[in-house]
Amino acid sequence: MKFPEAIENLIKSFTRLPGVGEKTAARQALNIMKWDKEYIDEFSHALKDIINLKFCRECGLFSDEDVCNICSSEKRKNEKVMCVVEGITDLMAIERSNQFSGVYHILGGVLNPLIGVGPDKLRIDILKERVQKNNIKTLIMAINPSVEGDATCSYIRQELNNESVSIERIGFGMPMGGSLEYLDPLTISKALENRKSI
Amino acid sequence: MKFPEAIENLIKSFTRLPGVGEKTAARQALNIMKWDKEYIDEFSHALKDIINLKFCRECGLFSDEDVCNICSSEKRKNEKVMCVVEGITDLMAIERSNQFSGVYHILGGVLNPLIGVGPDKLRIDILKERVQKNNIKTLIMAINPSVEGDATCSYIRQELNNESVSIERIGFGMPMGGSLEYLDPLTISKALENRKSI
Repeated sequence: MKFPEAIENLIKSFTRLPGVGEKTAARQALNIMKWDKEYIDEFSHALKDIINLKFCRECGLFSDEDVCNICSSEKRKNEKVMCVVEGITDLMAIERSNQFSGVYHILGGVLNPLIGVGPDKLRIDILKERVQKNNIKTLIMAINPSVEGDATCSYIRQELNNESVSIERIGFGMPMGGSLEYLDPLTISKALENRKSI
Repeated sequence: MKFPEAIENLIKSFTRLPGVGEKTAARQALNIMKWDKEYIDEFSHALKDIINLKFCRECGLFSDEDVCNICSSEKRKNEKVMCVVEGITDLMAIERSNQFSGVYHILGGVLNPLIGVGPDKLRIDILKERVQKNNIKTLIMAINPSVEGDATCSYIRQELNNESVSIERIGFGMPMGGSLEYLDPLTISKALENRKSI
């Protein structure tokens, strides 16, 4: 006995999501069968609306205009500091901290040859262009610490070798409110390495 | 900084799925933003198609006709045995075993007052009706073992007290290919209790 085509199609769509395997996808598709028609309609329309979403041609953030509020702010441009992040949620997290007043650049991921993410899949060319055009003095790499993240930083450093821009990576160490007792060895080693005189 | 409405709506839809919280929903919605337009369209249409899915008015299984292949089979009806399951996937699992030749009845869940699932939310009235109408002799409760499952079986037993139908629960014990070493104590106690002379 097989699922009808309508359910199979829905399962296929769900398996395209990160971390969703065949079993979870089937469970979610079958759950939707119990939903009110209205809720299913809402879901279907929300997806359609995503197709029409617009992005800032500079930093890559969602935006109603061609260029987003942050990129078009003279005050922020004048800082000559650009913060490179992997994705939109990273940008939002930094904005929430209220500690950054420059502009952003969303890469759209990190280099990962194993799953076919080469430099052409990331927004690296336009990053180079923007650094030159906006005369950026400091590039802050707010890339998550991982093998792929480290490789991406090295690659960008190489690509921008000829530019007069200082490239810096955000600091790694013990998180505020953390407890040494529960910290992983790698973070402890980074925290020891990155110690500062007080 | 907030997400645009289109993304917020999609996140809301995702949180309605079982086991999906705010964070997972946001991650999935943001992932969809990277999809090809074509894939998003497919997802949206698959949802629309679910609305038009039809169900057998007897057992509750998906079906192109008013009554499904199983319920309309004279051979299966003549067995006078009905197997009660929680959901469609349970029915499909039993069909795969090729060990059951009667008809099914899908309850649509188990009683769970904590999340508002009372007898009116399950297909219990129509179960009673079908047992009478089809002159069912044996009702096999293939309900998963849990507090709610046990309560549901007791409730149905009470509801059908006046009918001349034998109500039986599927056997609990050690699964085939299992290893005593790794079995949980409750299953071991059930397996000891349900022992058979050989």
